[in-house]
Amino acid sequence: MKNIYAIGVGLIGGSLALDIKTHRPDAVIHGISRKDATLTTALELGLIDQKGSLDDIENADLVIISIPVDATVKLLPTILDKIPDTGLVVDAGSTKEDICKVVENHPKRRNFLAMHPIAGTEHSGPSAAVKGLFKGKTNIVCEVEKTAFKLQEPALKLFTDIGMRMRYMNPIEHDRHIAYVSHLSHISSFMLGKTVIDKEKNERDIFDMAGSGFASTVRLAKSSPEMWTPIFEQNKTNVIETLEEYISNLTHFKELMKNDDFEAIYEEMKNTNHIKDILNGII
Amino acid sequence: MKNIYAIGVGLIGGSLALDIKTHRPDAVIHGISRKDATLTTALELGLIDQKGSLDDIENADLVIISIPVDATVKLLPTILDKIPDTGLVVDAGSTKEDICKVVENHPKRRNFLAMHPIAGTEHSGPSAAVKGLFKGKTNIVCEVEKTAFKLQEPALKLFTDIGMRMRYMNPIEHDRHIAYVSHLSHISSFMLGKTVIDKEKNERDIFDMAGSGFASTVRLAKSSPEMWTPIFEQNKTNVIETLEEYISNLTHFKELMKNDDFEAIYEEMKNTNHIKDILNGII
Repeated sequence: MKNIYAIGVGLIGGSLALDIKTHRPDAVIHGISRKDATLTTALELGLIDQKGSLDDIENADLVIISIPVDATVKLLPTILDKIPDTGLVVDAGSTKEDICKVVENHPKRRNFLAMHPIAGTEHSGPSAAVKGLFKGKTNIVCEVEKTAFKLQEPALKLFTDIGMRMRYMNPIEHDRHIAYVSHLSHISSFMLGKTVIDKEKNERDIFDMAGSGFASTVRLAKSSPEMWTPIFEQNKTNVIETLEEYISNLTHFKELMKNDDFEAIYEEMKNTNHIKDILNGII
Repeated sequence: MKNIYAIGVGLIGGSLALDIKTHRPDAVIHGISRKDATLTTALELGLIDQKGSLDDIENADLVIISIPVDATVKLLPTILDKIPDTGLVVDAGSTKEDICKVVENHPKRRNFLAMHPIAGTEHSGPSAAVKGLFKGKTNIVCEVEKTAFKLQEPALKLFTDIGMRMRYMNPIEHDRHIAYVSHLSHISSFMLGKTVIDKEKNERDIFDMAGSGFASTVRLAKSSPEMWTPIFEQNKTNVIETLEEYISNLTHFKELMKNDDFEAIYEEMKNTNHIKDILNGII
């Protein structure tokens, strides 16, 4: 894999590029972005070796798409049209069903690998890229059987080398689970931030009284709306279901409080403490 | 301040004891706890110098109460009864109205200082105690004018020396604001944990697919129910109000999704991104 094209050079694309450069020093990373200024920054930060364009993809050994998922759905068929028979296209989007669907009948479907590395921070753009972001992180690979083995093998070897642990899943299951463990957390965090901001017009009060606990809970509310709006749109049905369950649990908690049933409140929390054991090892 | 009694030697009491020993090497820290085993651990960890009992408080220069807030409300009048005229009692509870109220007519009200250091982690017990926990953290002091100046001055000097920034507020305002920036985050986190645990019976799925974002949002769900149940009980009215606003914001978000109004979803998130600027400096 000599010529690697990174479409999107932000947090995910940029971090992948950095790690690939470390583990495949001979690779040349070509960056592609809607905005030339972004590419200039990525070049200055050493994320990419040179600026590229979609027209060059006919020379690609590997194309990595890390852009908002609505843009991926629009762009992916065209990119697959251009990829040579010996090249592989992968995407890193947080939704998988719509992305897999848009190429299901594409003549070059075997040149595409759908994946979702579960890694990131609340920051975005090329300056958010960091080395080692994927070390020990799960990479969910969907419909692996639809990708040509000859192409998937070196790519999965590369992602393993940069520290990812592969897990295979179908796109529908992926979107259903990820709604719970990722998409819902973002909404709970955004709406927590909104609730507090709406109430506390005097920001000094928030600043002075908020501790690290609040900061941790609201951290994801710093995330990029450009990235997250299309994720919620594509995973609408699952996300609405998680929201309904979350709202129902919150309402139940509120009713217990109204009824002064603090024994039940205690039990609710005690049972959920169990999350400790589940989370051990994630952070 | 030679004889300091720490009633409660967990995360807060134990961390305070550690910092006080550093900054007042002549002080003797006497630990008091319902459970002797807890005191033994605190002694082994070097948090306290010796085990004490409530009967010794007549010798105290300073008593620090860091126990669940319902226990504080029950115990505080008795402790004030026992404190000598030259001694000060402070509490570190996360609610202030009920605690101030229970001693408002106490003959030794001037020997009490109500405070709430905004510091902590999701862990509890003596082993959770750490040095420097209060460095740069806000300490909210309530009804400072009701405490004898001669007693409050050396205590506030001590807390300043261990790094706290004092902020003065009345107990009602404290409880109203803290419901937003602390108590609500705990419930949002507990109910997020519950929602995911209820859904994902197969824990491997949670473990493998959950990233650092989920871990951060759900971190507070590891908190101690013993500590938090009485906080919610004492701050019931404010907490219910925050919950209603939070649920209403979540419901609105869900309705926007149902109506496919993703422009509005984008705006909701964009406006809340502003939390970045507010949080700068907290962590």
